Amino acid sequence: MGYELYYWPMIPGRGEPVRLTFAFGAIPYRDVAREEGIAVLQAFDAGEREEGHPFAPPYLVIEEDGDRTLHWQSAHLCDRIARREGLVDESNASRAMSLVLTLADLMDEAHDSHHPLATSLYYEDQKEAAQVAAEQFRTARIPKFLGFFEAHASEEGTLLGQNTSHVDAILWHVLEGLHYAFPKAMAGYAGRWPKVERLHERTPGHPSLAAYLASEDRIAFNEDGVFRRYPELDG
Amino acid sequence: MGYELYYWPMIPGRGEPVRLTFAFGAIPYRDVAREEGIAVLQAFDAGEREEGHPFAPPYLVIEEDGDRTLHWQSAHLCDRIARREGLVDESNASRAMSLVLTLADLMDEAHDSHHPLATSLYYEDQKEAAQVAAEQFRTARIPKFLGFFEAHASEEGTLLGQNTSHVDAILWHVLEGLHYAFPKAMAGYAGRWPKVERLHERTPGHPSLAAYLASEDRIAFNEDGVFRRYPELDG
Repeated sequence: MGYELYYWPMIPGRGEPVRLTFAFGAIPYRDVAREEGIAVLQAFDAGEREEGHPFAPPYLVIEEDGDRTLHWQSAHLCDRIARREGLVDESNASRAMSLVLTLADLMDEAHDSHHPLATSLYYEDQKEAAQVAAEQFRTARIPKFLGFFEAHASEEGTLLGQNTSHVDAILWHVLEGLHYAFPKAMAGYAGRWPKVERLHERTPGHPSLAAYLASEDRIAFNEDGVFRRYPELDG
Repeated sequence: MGYELYYWPMIPGRGEPVRLTFAFGAIPYRDVAREEGIAVLQAFDAGEREEGHPFAPPYLVIEEDGDRTLHWQSAHLCDRIARREGLVDESNASRAMSLVLTLADLMDEAHDSHHPLATSLYYEDQKEAAQVAAEQFRTARIPKFLGFFEAHASEEGTLLGQNTSHVDAILWHVLEGLHYAFPKAMAGYAGRWPKVERLHERTPGHPSLAAYLASEDRIAFNEDGVFRRYPELDG
């Protein structure tokens, strides 16, 4: 049995929730495009791989009893891994998936705040539209999302029960991304969602996450990813 | 055991994949906001329901052995229903979910083609941005998505095995929406994805879907939904 992840080697992006799920569970996997280069991604996109034809990275190949099955869509991969590896059980798997999909929506909206018109156009060609989109994202959407997670977090700063989970790890990453992209706006929100702040402080101390975050496996935020630091979009 | 769906009563929107999954399986459910009005949705959004605090409609409450559990995120609801009701099995559940999530992305992008800057702003206040976004959607994204589904469809026009499935029903709905919103662009694509066209023709003949589509339960497309007919966005 083995896991192969296929995602861009140079950004956290939509692959990071999957990397964090593996890291949280201390589950071994191969990060194939980081070992072999992005030609392996291009082969999937061209429909040249016998595992099948996925839509957009990240892709996951699970090998079991000689069978290789292909899966895609970031939140679904987290759910698949979490169920198989016992990071969730029947009682909380659906709530975990609802939360992870909501985090995926937040990441999509964070991306679209700098690319509102089209992913295929340069940021420089949609800067004015991005000003409007980013203002709405900062002032309306960040409070809606983080107020929602505040309602779901425990006093201790966890989303699923009393212990840190892979869902906390993904929210922690999203909070890191928001602070990276919108430092001024996020400083202005200090103190507003105390349970979310507790989660943000507490989560990276989880032993297997701490080991991952200190390793070279963790990729820094940068201006090719979902969360980008464009000061002009930070109000 | 029973299902309660909570979604806007006046649009197909992100609720329609869930309604279609129920309809395809001929599974009884209550469509609560259509029976009782949208105050029930507002009560969820205000955190006033004891089932919990979901993010954005559609919401699903499953009652079983006296327990009421809350679930949200359209694609996840389809997956949850499909697994519980045997519309998928272990061999194809993950592929079905990867496909349904890709259809959810397509619907999000169709929505953002007329609301690229912010959902909270009127269309009239983002018309120029929508021109650019809709052109990219029509010329780049529709071919990418439909070319992908062409690669996944059988010669007979099905996505999961030989028989029509709930995933086909959702793709059928999305194709209807694309023809509704972009009649000119879609006419220009005639013949390009023959297996997708076969699926589009074949699927509404499935008996339980045909019954649903002929009933008053099926809500027509309109300019409050995901797919909107704004002729100026159709090139």
